[in-house]
Amino acid sequence: MRLSPEEARRRLAPARVARLATVDAAGHPHQVPAAFAVRGDTLVTAVDHKPKRHQGLKRLRNIAVNPGVCVLADAYDEDWSRLWWTRADGLARVLEPDRCPEQLSWLREKYPQYRDRPPDGPVIEIAISRWTGWAAADPVGPRAGGG
Amino acid sequence: MRLSPEEARRRLAPARVARLATVDAAGHPHQVPAAFAVRGDTLVTAVDHKPKRHQGLKRLRNIAVNPGVCVLADAYDEDWSRLWWTRADGLARVLEPDRCPEQLSWLREKYPQYRDRPPDGPVIEIAISRWTGWAAADPVGPRAGGG
Repeated sequence: MRLSPEEARRRLAPARVARLATVDAAGHPHQVPAAFAVRGDTLVTAVDHKPKRHQGLKRLRNIAVNPGVCVLADAYDEDWSRLWWTRADGLARVLEPDRCPEQLSWLREKYPQYRDRPPDGPVIEIAISRWTGWAAADPVGPRAGGG
Repeated sequence: MRLSPEEARRRLAPARVARLATVDAAGHPHQVPAAFAVRGDTLVTAVDHKPKRHQGLKRLRNIAVNPGVCVLADAYDEDWSRLWWTRADGLARVLEPDRCPEQLSWLREKYPQYRDRPPDGPVIEIAISRWTGWAAADPVGPRAGGG
């Protein structure tokens, strides 16, 4: 079953990890897992810690040429009647961390890991224009525990 | 640390789910979670079961205009020293299921779920040209259990 936009957002927001897809100048997709936080229709993720800087540059270069991005969270279970996923599509922009204390506070609030070691790289802010999702079974209906 | 192509493939192949990113004609990325199987540098995934058919059409339309795709698997852990991900980039083509019994057998072998209910939609076959990956800690080195 399709999820409503509200239900898609409700499931995506608390997910601990999502995947950020961007597109390079040649039209090739790129994906990285990302910690993220959501407020309303805004999703933020940060380029954290120097070992990832190389990857960060690729996603940032992609956003510079192609601001359209996609964020996906999903739940895997060997019982395929429990599968679900949720996706957010929107336009991204890159912010320097000293320009977005508010957005960084969303990330620190969600992830204790960031409280000890705040992200030191740019912040990607995404204006979500479309929330979609799918679940194998109706989460609240009579089929929730069934096949 | 960066993973070698061999290590990236060794980690991706047994992952139970990965995310397939494709790009539409307007250059916007699209992602879906996918069951998949790997042999050598070939990765296959199938469009299974009618309820997903709508989504399947989108990814198939994308591949028709943009065969360059990306597949990502990652491990999340609240201990961020255990994070890793692995990514495969390549060119996709779409096969009718009755033309690829071999590829379908790879999927059935990996997923008991497919033995009872074989995928009934097209098969996406990806020729992987690049395996990349990253792990927060060296999986076999002295830092494996550390921070």
